Amino acid sequence: MPSAEDITKAVNRYLETVSQGRPDDVAALYAEDATVEDPVGGEVHIGRQAIRGFYANVLGAKCETDVVTLRALGNEAAYFWRLTVDLGEGDRMTIEIISVMTFDDEGKIASMKAYWGPDNIKQG
Amino acid sequence: MPSAEDITKAVNRYLETVSQGRPDDVAALYAEDATVEDPVGGEVHIGRQAIRGFYANVLGAKCETDVVTLRALGNEAAYFWRLTVDLGEGDRMTIEIISVMTFDDEGKIASMKAYWGPDNIKQG
Repeated sequence: MPSAEDITKAVNRYLETVSQGRPDDVAALYAEDATVEDPVGGEVHIGRQAIRGFYANVLGAKCETDVVTLRALGNEAAYFWRLTVDLGEGDRMTIEIISVMTFDDEGKIASMKAYWGPDNIKQG
Repeated sequence: MPSAEDITKAVNRYLETVSQGRPDDVAALYAEDATVEDPVGGEVHIGRQAIRGFYANVLGAKCETDVVTLRALGNEAAYFWRLTVDLGEGDRMTIEIISVMTFDDEGKIASMKAYWGPDNIKQG
C-alpha cells in the first residue's frame, strides 16, 4: 500500500501535469483500469485510454493549481484546491474543487472524483 | 433520486443533529445498510445499529458545525467543514474535515466518509 507521503507526492505530481497541460503524463499516473468522474454526476471515463482522451479535451489553456488543504488517509486522498485558468487578455477563471482519489498498491490512481459545479466557478 | 436541494437539506440536518449530540437522530438519517468511515483509513461501521453506536461514542461534548463549502452533485455531497468542540473552561478544539456522502433514492445517507487526521485538529 502506498504511504501517505507517496499519495501526497502523487497528488502533487497530478496537479503539476494538469497545470502543464500534458494529457499523456496525466494519464500515466492512472492505473490501466482506473475511473474518472469530473465533475461528479457526469460521465464516468473508464480506462487509461478514455482518461487520456478526457484530459486531451479539457487541458490546453494555461492554468495554475493551488491546494487549500489535502489529507492522505489509507489508500485515499481528499483535497480542496483551486484551478485558475488563464483565458488570455488578462481574463481569468477560477474553479474551486473538492477532489477524492483512491490509489492501488503500486501508487497509481485507481479512481478520481471531482466535486464542482457552476457555483464554484469565478470569473475575473 | 434526491435533488441537489434535498441533499443539501440532508447534510444540514446531519450537521444539526451532530452538533446537538443526538445519536438516535443522526442514525435515523442513514439507510438501514449504510456505511460510515470516520476517519477514512479507520474502521468501517456497517448498518444503522453500528452507526448509532459509533455516534453514541463520539458525540457528547457541546459542539458547533460550520460549513466552508458544500457541493451536491448526482446522488452525492462533498463538503469542507469545521467541527468546533467545547472542552469546557474556555478550551476549544477545532477539526477541519472534508466529508463525502452518497444518498439512496429515498434521500437517506447510504455512505459517509470523513477525511481528517491529527494535522487537521487545532487546539485553543
